[in-house]
Amino acid sequence: MIIVMRPGAATDDIERVVSRVQRAGLSTHLSQGEDRTVIGVIGHDPYGIKDAFTHDPAVEDVIRITKPYKLSGREFRRQDTVVTLPGGLRIGGGEVVLMAGPCSVEDEAMLLETAAAVRDAGAHVLRGGAFKPRSSPYAFQGLGRSGLRILARARALTGLPVVTEVMTPGEVEAVSDAADIVQIGARSMQNFDLLREVGRQPKPVVIKRGLSSTIEEWLLSAEYVLSQGNYNVMLCERGIRTFETATRNTLDITAVPLLDELSHLPVVVDPSHGTGRWSLVAATARAAIAAGADALMIEVHPRPDEALSDGPQSLTLPNFASLVPTLDAVAHAVGRALAPSPTRTTGAAAAR
Amino acid sequence: MIIVMRPGAATDDIERVVSRVQRAGLSTHLSQGEDRTVIGVIGHDPYGIKDAFTHDPAVEDVIRITKPYKLSGREFRRQDTVVTLPGGLRIGGGEVVLMAGPCSVEDEAMLLETAAAVRDAGAHVLRGGAFKPRSSPYAFQGLGRSGLRILARARALTGLPVVTEVMTPGEVEAVSDAADIVQIGARSMQNFDLLREVGRQPKPVVIKRGLSSTIEEWLLSAEYVLSQGNYNVMLCERGIRTFETATRNTLDITAVPLLDELSHLPVVVDPSHGTGRWSLVAATARAAIAAGADALMIEVHPRPDEALSDGPQSLTLPNFASLVPTLDAVAHAVGRALAPSPTRTTGAAAAR
Amino acid sequence: MIIVMRPGAATDDIERVVSRVQRAGLSTHLSQGEDRTVIGVIGHDPYGIKDAFTHDPAVEDVIRITKPYKLSGREFRRQDTVVTLPGGLRIGGGEVVLMAGPCSVEDEAMLLETAAAVRDAGAHVLRGGAFKPRSSPYAFQGLGRSGLRILARARALTGLPVVTEVMTPGEVEAVSDAADIVQIGARSMQNFDLLREVGRQPKPVVIKRGLSSTIEEWLLSAEYVLSQGNYNVMLCERGIRTFETATRNTLDITAVPLLDELSHLPVVVDPSHGTGRWSLVAATARAAIAAGADALMIEVHPRPDEALSDGPQSLTLPNFASLVPTLDAVAHAVGRALAPSPTRTTGAAAAR
Amino acid sequence: MIIVMRPGAATDDIERVVSRVQRAGLSTHLSQGEDRTVIGVIGHDPYGIKDAFTHDPAVEDVIRITKPYKLSGREFRRQDTVVTLPGGLRIGGGEVVLMAGPCSVEDEAMLLETAAAVRDAGAHVLRGGAFKPRSSPYAFQGLGRSGLRILARARALTGLPVVTEVMTPGEVEAVSDAADIVQIGARSMQNFDLLREVGRQPKPVVIKRGLSSTIEEWLLSAEYVLSQGNYNVMLCERGIRTFETATRNTLDITAVPLLDELSHLPVVVDPSHGTGRWSLVAATARAAIAAGADALMIEVHPRPDEALSDGPQSLTLPNFASLVPTLDAVAHAVGRALAPSPTRTTGAAAAR
Repeated sequence: MIIVMRPGAATDDIERVVSRVQRAGLSTHLSQGEDRTVIGVIGHDPYGIKDAFTHDPAVEDVIRITKPYKLSGREFRRQDTVVTLPGGLRIGGGEVVLMAGPCSVEDEAMLLETAAAVRDAGAHVLRGGAFKPRSSPYAFQGLGRSGLRILARARALTGLPVVTEVMTPGEVEAVSDAADIVQIGARSMQNFDLLREVGRQPKPVVIKRGLSSTIEEWLLSAEYVLSQGNYNVMLCERGIRTFETATRNTLDITAVPLLDELSHLPVVVDPSHGTGRWSLVAATARAAIAAGADALMIEVHPRPDEALSDGPQSLTLPNFASLVPTLDAVAHAVGRALAPSPTRTTGAAAAR
Repeated sequence: MIIVMRPGAATDDIERVVSRVQRAGLSTHLSQGEDRTVIGVIGHDPYGIKDAFTHDPAVEDVIRITKPYKLSGREFRRQDTVVTLPGGLRIGGGEVVLMAGPCSVEDEAMLLETAAAVRDAGAHVLRGGAFKPRSSPYAFQGLGRSGLRILARARALTGLPVVTEVMTPGEVEAVSDAADIVQIGARSMQNFDLLREVGRQPKPVVIKRGLSSTIEEWLLSAEYVLSQGNYNVMLCERGIRTFETATRNTLDITAVPLLDELSHLPVVVDPSHGTGRWSLVAATARAAIAAGADALMIEVHPRPDEALSDGPQSLTLPNFASLVPTLDAVAHAVGRALAPSPTRTTGAAAAR
Repeated sequence: MIIVMRPGAATDDIERVVSRVQRAGLSTHLSQGEDRTVIGVIGHDPYGIKDAFTHDPAVEDVIRITKPYKLSGREFRRQDTVVTLPGGLRIGGGEVVLMAGPCSVEDEAMLLETAAAVRDAGAHVLRGGAFKPRSSPYAFQGLGRSGLRILARARALTGLPVVTEVMTPGEVEAVSDAADIVQIGARSMQNFDLLREVGRQPKPVVIKRGLSSTIEEWLLSAEYVLSQGNYNVMLCERGIRTFETATRNTLDITAVPLLDELSHLPVVVDPSHGTGRWSLVAATARAAIAAGADALMIEVHPRPDEALSDGPQSLTLPNFASLVPTLDAVAHAVGRALAPSPTRTTGAAAAR
Repeated sequence: MIIVMRPGAATDDIERVVSRVQRAGLSTHLSQGEDRTVIGVIGHDPYGIKDAFTHDPAVEDVIRITKPYKLSGREFRRQDTVVTLPGGLRIGGGEVVLMAGPCSVEDEAMLLETAAAVRDAGAHVLRGGAFKPRSSPYAFQGLGRSGLRILARARALTGLPVVTEVMTPGEVEAVSDAADIVQIGARSMQNFDLLREVGRQPKPVVIKRGLSSTIEEWLLSAEYVLSQGNYNVMLCERGIRTFETATRNTLDITAVPLLDELSHLPVVVDPSHGTGRWSLVAATARAAIAAGADALMIEVHPRPDEALSDGPQSLTLPNFASLVPTLDAVAHAVGRALAPSPTRTTGAAAAR
């Protein structure tokens, strides 16, 4: 940490700041510039006193020089984290994983229809929401626990592992029991009690980026989970809120290579929420793989025009089926490949 | 709701859309423009099928023409909601109310010192966080339930009603028991389970605006509380996230008169979070009253340089004491006044 | 400037950086922290080499510790700049100045009608655009030079000094001849050729903040004008672009006290563009004065429903007339007053 | 255009609005909903009276239902615009074009060195700024007209067509003479006089997106050029300004497929400005091609650490050379290819 004194700060001023730093058990190092004195603060955790000088009229600025996150950073762990799911599917290990399914679990028939179709098209994980965060109290709020049972059914029938969202600490146990990956939604990214709670359960966690969360805040939210002992954390870019209203959100594609520099955690991209319009999903899904994403999460619905949520951004089953080979082509172009499809590995459509 | 057909949409296309609308139990009204046919959808709740046309190639756009919130809107209730606290303090009834206190309850001594000082300076409500949402897991997280006990103590000693935040549904009962106003923090504004839960408890609720929440989303969050039967809801503007980094947030002062047009709920302004810098609080607090705010929420700390959170934006006790008369002057300039001070009503501080 | 080395940077790495700094004629000062070495760069203008280390793998970050603007900053000039107009009107000297008039000069009759009315209501300066920046080429683009002639006419008849926008270097001379204050519009805030050109003409300049300009960029734009020798520069906050669509822009009220800390230049607030809705102008105009604005710029039109531009945010003549006394009341509440009205100083309504 | 009356609007209110519409030579069509009357406005250019009802207390909202741009939209022209440069290079015709070079022309030697290297690596167009818009008046402002001469020299020697920025109407002729493509920079996107002026010269124009410009405003800026008769216009996405500070801008990758839906104009992506960090350029360049970009514009400098501008986001010559084949691979994965390299077509670099 660096404390920048105002030009003309007197010796007394500098001594007052230095002595405040020393009282906190830290040491200082002075550097006299042309106009200003700069005080380096040395020692373990200098940030405990970061805010101690904002009322001091002789202090101009206090500048942090290290990252506030630790466990989620590359400095803590050089090599990539690889999350392994039941059945051996690996996320973050080089091959690209496709998560697909409806926004909400609406009923058993539609979920099973979708699950079978996305598996046959090449998806590796089934997504579907049982608990749905909706802006309006008058909108469909999800089936809740009965939705979890339907997801379990779909997993049993298709062999696809399941990712689903948990919204509140009281449901973490139930969701953790039902899911293979527990999702923290964008609106919950800074629900810190929830983060701690999913940090204490054993299933991998995917954390969607908050609508207006910086990369740094996102990594700090991951830090909440990691610091509870759960190291199987993935980060899902799903678009941020900007001034642009032509799309639902602005997909921050640069987050993909940037996270790869800053963190060892796998990166997922959700082009459905990232754009909000189904006709823009294919192009941005391909872009995400070209940018280096470890996985995609895509909303697919057998009849988007009748979806209870997110119909406008859902692909139809044929849309999704025709998208997958193009994703594979782009993956190959960047020296990767889609992960082996569960369908294909078990021998075509034998399981059907 | 209006469905805009693409130029050149055929009769078949229009019939398909009309029949889809009718299947939902709604009726239509066609209007033929120069280039486009526009289909008005008539009936109760036309938005159930708002998303039913996004995959129809002949439909260009679907436009909502009514607000999605009801109970929180002026159309539902013309006259202003007035929230009355124990002791008869009224928020939203014309007089301006001051809520002040530390960001966090750090210990009993500092809270009692602050509470007495802000009361003597003219504050009407004591603020203080027992449960603290912090971006980093390594930052001070609040005293939790023991913080609630300290707040209760401060209330007993000073007579000031207390506002404090609740972060998770499991703590709503405890916070509701301890507080006179239950606060939903900015990061929880779309924690829908929590909103429902505070909607079911009896104490007034203040909902802080989310960092990137539109006015409409904010009113929908209020709607979650109102729709559970709790009508004593206040809205607190505390700055939104923008590209500007010179301040912690951008205080959206226009939200004050705009909410007064759109909603009957009282409006609170928090210039501490709104600016993030104590030296900017006084000017923006005065601006908030000039703009018509019903109440202010201001962070005050006896020793901001030692605060465990939000020191940079906290006023000292003398800062706050010298601010209050200027707030009263501005209130008078716009035809209002500060609410009677609990101190002054008991005559205690009459001589000062 | 501070260069932060990565943890584990070798002696060679540090020497390479130090020698690069020295090659630029600057000196260094090393500070060894727990994990990182920090190199202070000392000398005149260290920023010439700010970007010289971004490709160096041993350098983590380069941090600027001084402001990039000089002439517009408080460090350069402690006391407030006061801009004096013909007739002795002073902006920035304590009294609050009102600039009012239509968005565009539409024709002579409407401008004269408006000018007389705003003067009688208490305005001190007449605003009106002859050159209009419009998003669409199909919208009214202003009367150009004939608009300037009409403004000159209005000044002659009412005695009000005139502020009007210049959009392009080739028109600076004509606008400077016609106007008492030359306005740089929000869309031109980073039109650097234009800034330089208005820096070379003698009339005071008001620079509107760009839609997505930081405070720092804005002060740098002022610096372009100041560095050409024109020191009579004012800054006009007119709202920034954010995610919120309920208002045309988000008025950054905190910019007012912040600019007062950072700069000596007078601050104007434009609540018309800041909100985009006439019904929100009065409350935000009062807020601006409470926050410390030196002047307001308000759009007024005799028949807003027939305005060729900005009708939605224009006050009617009676709206404006009834607003002025409330502005005076707020000004008094913060220890200021409206500047003397030209009408009143020449003897009440004698001229009418 | 649709006029939405408030609930409870009286017959008189509706008649007043209808008669106002008719006075403008337009006709109306009434539609009576459950709560509100909606008035469709029919006729050519209904937007002339769009703002005529904002002061009418019985009118709730006025909603535009058509796009404000015409010539730049898909409705005006179904098939893609293809811009052809001297030598036959086509942009927008399917093959992907690479524009590369330094941010600024710093001197002849460095430009010629860069030009030869990027040509040999496979670039098709040389970029380089002679006129540089810089936030600070103290930063390098470009070589101006002598920079144009150096660009002409580089073109003569390498055969690469040249793209360079023009900042002000007075320099349009000189830039147009020197350049093969005239660039409108992000800060000039709404410099309407400049847009008109480049619309009147014969060279193709590339318009960079403004830092906070919506897609719609961007297309309207293109409309300014098109409406002057110059139809060879390209749009360059270069990142928008958001709350995220980890990158210089936020590259809006979704703009690529969205523009393809809305407009017939070719789309260029600039990952250098879009990210601001050279280490993020390769991944986002590949993403841009995967998303469907017609061309890329990439900053390349032989010694980025000594660049006078934009060093942090410039690739070195070897960085660029190793990037090109990966771009070609991604182009093939999406059914395209890089345009034939001028070098390769002449067989010159065949051995390399």
